[in-house]
This record gives sequence, C-alpha cells and structure tokens, in this order.
Amino acid sequence: MPISPYIKEKMSSKTAGVIRKMFEEGLELKKKYGEDNVFDFSIGNPDLNPPEEIFKCIEELAKNREKNFHGYMPNPGYQFAREAMAKKTEEEQGIPVDFSCVVMSVGAAGALNSLFKAILSEGDNVIVPSPFFTEYRHYVHNYGGSLIEVPTKPDFSLDVDAIAAALTEKTSAVLINSPNNPTGRIYSTEEIKKLAEVLELHAKKCGRKPYLVCDEPYRAIVYDGNSVAPVFPVYDSAIIVTSFAKNLSLPGERIGYICVNPACPDKDEVVAACIFTTRILGYVNAPAFFQRVVAKTWNVKVDYSLYKKRRDMLMNVLDESGVEHIIPEGAFYMWCKAPEVFGADDMAFCDYLKKYNILSAPGSGFGGKGWIRLAYCVSEKSIENSRKAFVKAMKDLEEEK
Amino acid sequence: MPISPYIKEKMSSKTAGVIRKMFEEGLELKKKYGEDNVFDFSIGNPDLNPPEEIFKCIEELAKNREKNFHGYMPNPGYQFAREAMAKKTEEEQGIPVDFSCVVMSVGAAGALNSLFKAILSEGDNVIVPSPFFTEYRHYVHNYGGSLIEVPTKPDFSLDVDAIAAALTEKTSAVLINSPNNPTGRIYSTEEIKKLAEVLELHAKKCGRKPYLVCDEPYRAIVYDGNSVAPVFPVYDSAIIVTSFAKNLSLPGERIGYICVNPACPDKDEVVAACIFTTRILGYVNAPAFFQRVVAKTWNVKVDYSLYKKRRDMLMNVLDESGVEHIIPEGAFYMWCKAPEVFGADDMAFCDYLKKYNILSAPGSGFGGKGWIRLAYCVSEKSIENSRKAFVKAMKDLEEEK
Repeated sequence: MPISPYIKEKMSSKTAGVIRKMFEEGLELKKKYGEDNVFDFSIGNPDLNPPEEIFKCIEELAKNREKNFHGYMPNPGYQFAREAMAKKTEEEQGIPVDFSCVVMSVGAAGALNSLFKAILSEGDNVIVPSPFFTEYRHYVHNYGGSLIEVPTKPDFSLDVDAIAAALTEKTSAVLINSPNNPTGRIYSTEEIKKLAEVLELHAKKCGRKPYLVCDEPYRAIVYDGNSVAPVFPVYDSAIIVTSFAKNLSLPGERIGYICVNPACPDKDEVVAACIFTTRILGYVNAPAFFQRVVAKTWNVKVDYSLYKKRRDMLMNVLDESGVEHIIPEGAFYMWCKAPEVFGADDMAFCDYLKKYNILSAPGSGFGGKGWIRLAYCVSEKSIENSRKAFVKAMKDLEEEK
Repeated sequence: MPISPYIKEKMSSKTAGVIRKMFEEGLELKKKYGEDNVFDFSIGNPDLNPPEEIFKCIEELAKNREKNFHGYMPNPGYQFAREAMAKKTEEEQGIPVDFSCVVMSVGAAGALNSLFKAILSEGDNVIVPSPFFTEYRHYVHNYGGSLIEVPTKPDFSLDVDAIAAALTEKTSAVLINSPNNPTGRIYSTEEIKKLAEVLELHAKKCGRKPYLVCDEPYRAIVYDGNSVAPVFPVYDSAIIVTSFAKNLSLPGERIGYICVNPACPDKDEVVAACIFTTRILGYVNAPAFFQRVVAKTWNVKVDYSLYKKRRDMLMNVLDESGVEHIIPEGAFYMWCKAPEVFGADDMAFCDYLKKYNILSAPGSGFGGKGWIRLAYCVSEKSIENSRKAFVKAMKDLEEEK
C-alpha cells in the first residue's frame, strides 16, 4: 500500500477512460430503458458477427485433442500463424514478406505496447497526427516516451510539413492510423510518399531514422472504392501493427500481430526486441487458440456493406438534425463538430446528448477539441431510432438560444 | 531506429531468456535426434493434456453464435467469470470473496504486470525469497521497481527474519510463490503467519504496509498430502495472482486473474488500478473465449498423480546417477545441486548435460547459483530414457577427475 501516485493521478483525471465509462454507463442505461431506447455510439465494439467461416473454424479446432494444442509455443507465436500473417502482409503491401518479420500479439494494443517497449527510451518522442486514438498516450507514456500531437489539416489529411517541423533527434517513431480512428480519414498514397520523403530527409540530417508505425486494424473496412496505401514499398523502416478485432469482429479475443518491413535496416533486431518485450511484459505469447483461428481464416471474404449502409443512415440522421460531420472513408466512426454554443467544450456536448440517451465519445480525448466521435458499429434499428433523439436534441438546443 | 539501448542490453545479457533458449534449442534437437532421444527438462510446459471436461466445454462454447460472444466486455472481464474466480478463491482461502475483488488477466504473467504497474513507483522495491521465478526481475523492473532477493533457508523454507531485515519504507510488496518454482517448496502455515506478523510490525513502524503478493499457479499441484496455506485470513493486504496454465494445462491461452483480499484497506483502489493498468498496458481484457472456459471448468477434478509418478521416477534416476536434489512438495520442478567440480557455475553444468541431450535450466537465473532446475512435466518414457544419459554423464564426470 498504497497504489502508485502516477497511476492514481492518471486514473482520476477528467478524461481518463471516458469512452470506457460511456460504454459501461451505456450497459446500465440499456438495462434501465431497454436496448432499443439507448443509442450507444460510444465504443468501437464491432456489431457485425464474425463471418460464418470463423465460427466453423472455431468449431473444427475445438475438436482437436492433440497434445500441447493449448500449450506454450515460442514467444513470437506459431510459425504457421506467422507465415499466414506474412502472406497477408505480402498481399497488402505488394512485396515479399516472410514469417521472420512477424510477431503475433495480444491485439493491436498489445502489439503497440510490445513495440514501444522495444524502441522507446526515456525522453524519446513519438509523433502522432491528431486527432488520434486516445489510448496511444498511455502506450507511449508507459515506456518513458512523450507523444507529440501534430494537428492534421482542416480536412484531416496529413500535414506533412507540420510533421517535418516537429521531428527531432529524439523522435523514435511517427505513428499513423489509417483508416483513422476517430475521423475515418484514409491517408492517400501521395501523403504517405511525402511523409516517407520527409522522414528520409530528417534521417539524413540528424542520423536517427524514425520508424513509421502504421496501426491498421481498420484496413479492410473502407468505402466508396477507397483503399489503404502500402507503406513498405516507400519507407524501409515501416512497421505494421494490427489485429483481427475490427475486420473479423474478434475484439475480445485479443489477437493481432506486428510486422516489420523486411527492408528495415535493423529488422532482425527490432523483431528480436519485440519478441523479448512480448515475453517480459507478461503477454508471453498471443492466445494460442485464436492464433490458430486467424492463421486459417485471415483471408475470408467479409461483407462490410452493412457498415457502409449504417454510415449512410447515420449521415442522413445527422444531416436531418443539423449536426456537422465529415464523410468517413473507412472504419466505423463519424467525426462530428460540436454545435457553436458548446464551442470547444465537446464534453458538454456529449453530456447534453446523453440526456437524450445518445452516447458518444468526446473528441478532446482524441486530441480533437470541439468534436465528438460516434461509433456506428451499431444496429440499423438503433441508428434509425436515434433520429428522433438527435432531431429533438438539436431542436431543443436551437430553442434554448 | 535504433531499438532501446536498455532492451538491447537486457536481450544480450548472458542469462537473458536462457530457459526459453533451451526450450527452442530443444525443439531443434528433437528434430535432429528424434523426440525420444532428447531429454527436455527445460521448460514448465505442462505435459498432461487438459482434462476432458475442458475439451468438452471448448466444443460446447464453439457452437455459440450469440452476438458479441467474442466482443469486448468491461476491462476486468465478464462478471460471471469474475464471480467464478471469487468462488474459487473463497474455497481456497476459506473466507467470503465476491467478484469485485477479481480482475481477469492475460495469465499470471499479465496479472503480475498489471499489478506492479498499478502499485510500483520509481525507486520502490519488491522483496522476493530466492530462488524465484526468473521473470519476476523483468516484471518488477518494467515499472521502475527493484527486486530485492532474500535467500531462503538451506531447506528453501522462508527466512522470515531475513525478510524482516530487508524491509524498507520503499518496500511496496513481498512476492511469494508457493509451491515454488524452481524448488517445489510449499511455505507452511507457520511460515506465512510469521511473515504476516513481520509485515504488520513493519507497517506499524514505518507507516507503509507492503502488499503480500502470492503467485499461485501451482496451488493445485501438490504431493504427499501437502497443501498451500491460505493468506487472506492472516494478512489483509494480500493479493493473489494465478492462472490456469499449469493446473488445467492451458499455458498458451493466457488466462488468469488477480484477486485482492476483500479485507485489504485499499481494496477498491487496488482493484480499480489493476483494471486501469490492464487497459493501458494493452491487454485490454483477458481473452474472451477462455474466460468463458475457465468460468465453467475451474472446479473440475484433475488427477495430478501422474506428476507425482514422474517426480518419483526422476528422483530415482537422479539418485541412481548421483545428482543431489531436494524433494519437491508441489509444482513439477526438481531443484538439483551442480556437482562440486562445477562449483557455483550452474551454466557449465547445464552445458555439460546438454552434451548428453539433457536440457535443463541453470539456477543462477532463478537467483540460485550452483543449482539447476529440471522440469519433469515430460513423458515417463522420456524420464526413463534419460536414466542412461544421466548415469553416463555423471560417470564420465567422475572419470574425468
């Protein structure tokens, strides 16, 4: 006794786990008002069931009584799982990748922690275009790094010049997330190329080459013919972290991986370090059973048109009620501007919407003051039912003026 | 680029992951010489299959297509899983425990990391009786703590006076592991009581009460009528961390939990902190599917007599070949003294045995210089086959003199 003062402070900060709190409040509200009368856009818990192939695969694997089927394996994971992820990465990146580039992880969150533990020293920094996934702050602070937030452009595309200006000799990595949580923005091939050039230039000048860490759990969930640009062909020190939480709807199972560009000058060392940190951080290895599942099912075809339908429905609801939003190109988040009366106080807008049983996530946690995030991985019924609530909320606001 | 110098140094240290290396070398040797001709006592990968009830439960759960079955749940885990673990703890500790004391974790290793992140500040220390599980060093160093090794008595029972002498106002916790890895020793009720008294006394004197952290993955695996003494009734600030890796043979699935004594003065805060650190360390939650499995199967009866048989076989082999060892009371490790010719150089003894295809773990990694650990969770055939190798190894040693 007592607990760490640092943790105590972080836990009790106003924005600490506000999304999680909303999610948990949502569960309570639903008990009270019924599932259909609470409009819970708070958390990215995929609402599509995993594809039937996944369930079949789970059933098949469940029959296996082979010795050591649930036992330890080497820390980076089963070789067949690493090979499958290499194949997947090969298809996505368009260059040859082998299993030695891959470390299986406890989700993308576990992957980022293993990676940052491997590369960060006290005083290093990680540059992130903002807005960004809130938990990045912790993942970087955990290992003595500081997170430097560099705002994106008004359309939420990368501001590469601003990133260039933020780079220092203490920059260990630039962390991008495309499709982006919370904005739904996909960074274009041109943006990625320009970013790569800027990083190369910086490396030449200062002698330290930042890793380009690409957090890609939403890669497969894209709309309107968009796609996520490969990074391996344009930047050698690129590292992909991802999971099967969103594309295969398995977030509770904590399965993901790290894949280091085979062209990375210190590839073997980074991979070895990630294997080591996976061990010493107590992950030990990615869960065995779901390594087996994703090794067999990573390339199943999934129909994401339902998410598109929901996106379109929600945009329609927001347009009708007069909430300003951007058009997401991928993922399942809608980034909405708080009405003027709230100014930069997005938390107040969230609290206001909660009175109408609409649960959302305040943007300031994402480094996006004055905005809120709606996760539309919820039922169509829920979106349609939310129409009245949104319209009323915005109308009441108008009348209060 | 590059990776963290701290990690680089730790990775390349002589003792870094030596057990894991042995395990991986073992896999290679087996490919080369055949499964039956390599005697791999290097790692605690349980060799018993999980009980049939576990497989049946997995098959049953695999059929479930309920919505959100593999989705996120609150960070501490499903309430039904926490309730099951509370019930389990209640039976083990003999006092009422409810779910609010429990946080589901990614194995015991994940549990210890969540806990140490929650309670340690830079400069704090954790006292551990040595020898001890090697990975504790990392789990404590990860969060700025230092591990103070306090040798046990010559019979490997707790030296409570030595622990008392080591306590400082910087002591955040005392960490015990019973049955012990690597010695197989179980700490008696008297030892635990005396330890509790010493901690109470220290708390009164210095105003800071150390947590007593009990790492108990081997609790169920005991021999000769031994049992593990409950700690909750004798010390309020006690915290149990454990997993189903060893007792249910599910080490690859990474499922365990933290349980804080309901009587702990800051119970709610410690639990909240562990939930928070489970989130920010990127575990997010214990794997969903295996939370469901252990919630249903934690109390299946398991026959550990096979481990006892193996223990007895291995003791017989060692006695015949002249390797000194202690008699394990629990777990599945045999703690053996390196022959005099090696002195304190246990690594040299391990290397020597490797020439005879016997894989073992050097004791110095466990804080037990001059000893080695043999994990006897291996087939009887392998133990019996190792007889010749042990006898020859020890005879050759004699002749070399």
